[in-house]
Amino acid sequence: MNPERLAAQLNFILEIDKLKTVIRQTYLTDKSRRENSAEHSWHLAMLAMTLAEYANEPIDLNRVIKLVLIHDIIEIDAGDTPAFDLAGNVTKVEREILAATRLFGLLPPGQQAEFQQLWEEFEAQETPDSHFALVLDRFHPLFHNKHTEGASWIPFNVSRAQVERRMQPIRDYSATLWAYVAETIEESVRLGYVREE
Amino acid sequence: MNPERLAAQLNFILEIDKLKTVIRQTYLTDKSRRENSAEHSWHLAMLAMTLAEYANEPIDLNRVIKLVLIHDIIEIDAGDTPAFDLAGNVTKVEREILAATRLFGLLPPGQQAEFQQLWEEFEAQETPDSHFALVLDRFHPLFHNKHTEGASWIPFNVSRAQVERRMQPIRDYSATLWAYVAETIEESVRLGYVREE
Repeated sequence: MNPERLAAQLNFILEIDKLKTVIRQTYLTDKSRRENSAEHSWHLAMLAMTLAEYANEPIDLNRVIKLVLIHDIIEIDAGDTPAFDLAGNVTKVEREILAATRLFGLLPPGQQAEFQQLWEEFEAQETPDSHFALVLDRFHPLFHNKHTEGASWIPFNVSRAQVERRMQPIRDYSATLWAYVAETIEESVRLGYVREE
Repeated sequence: MNPERLAAQLNFILEIDKLKTVIRQTYLTDKSRRENSAEHSWHLAMLAMTLAEYANEPIDLNRVIKLVLIHDIIEIDAGDTPAFDLAGNVTKVEREILAATRLFGLLPPGQQAEFQQLWEEFEAQETPDSHFALVLDRFHPLFHNKHTEGASWIPFNVSRAQVERRMQPIRDYSATLWAYVAETIEESVRLGYVREE
């Protein structure tokens, strides 16, 4: 064994502990507090295991799980950029590329490349696995909003058009989940969690 | 698509959101608060992806990831039983079996069996994948104790013999991680995080 290799790996593991302190807009379904990106990533992996059958395209579930486990690590440096924060989204890509370079760069070279490629695959959205990982990442906050009376929609005064645009990947890549999402959007407009226009 | 099947799956996903409110003894490495079992499970999955090469036996990493993602879900009903809580450990098995029946029972039958079997595999400790999943589950709190000056050892007045017993699976199933763990135990005794006898 190579002590420097293990030391680098453990340093990465120590560093990513910080993802537990990155706070998202989304509330836990009991509304007790906002969710952090580490527990969110766990929940997405469980969504992948539970809902894999609803991908329109053939997927490799094991790769989808890895994509969702890794996809938010860059937020340790780049922060969570709320979906409806227009200014934050202008600089998001640049901040996230720098973050990936530093964070995955803590790993030994082979693993650095592997993790970096998984993250890039998620971002590039050119493969069925990354499509379904994005479906889950978009579905999750809608599901939490449904169960928290729009707790992370109302403060942003979100419109139906904004939510529909955000949910477009679900429309594109999961017919079954889209049927559920479309119904949830109707209900959310009716209940005033999302404004009609 | 079968609306009842999707409803059952989403009910499971809603229910397991509660794992984010199950608090463990272990502190985050910045010592800001104790860790919850959902974010812990995410961190274990990342340990699996990063440290898989250190399993003594050949493992299927994808199965190890699933084992660690699922293994703590029963704590939603059964609670987290601290390793050094002797009374709690007497009733642990019974509480956890009931929890698995109820929680995985929310899923449609095929998935219920799949998730239940993964959990039982972890508990039974008869396969290389479950051995390595346990290695990670035991390694993680030691690693956090190292980086928090024994924050979850000191309140339990833990002895070297107790920690060594707890770390036995690492000795059995990962020579490389055991070398690191043995050194960390020595250091922890020297620094007073763990008592010599």
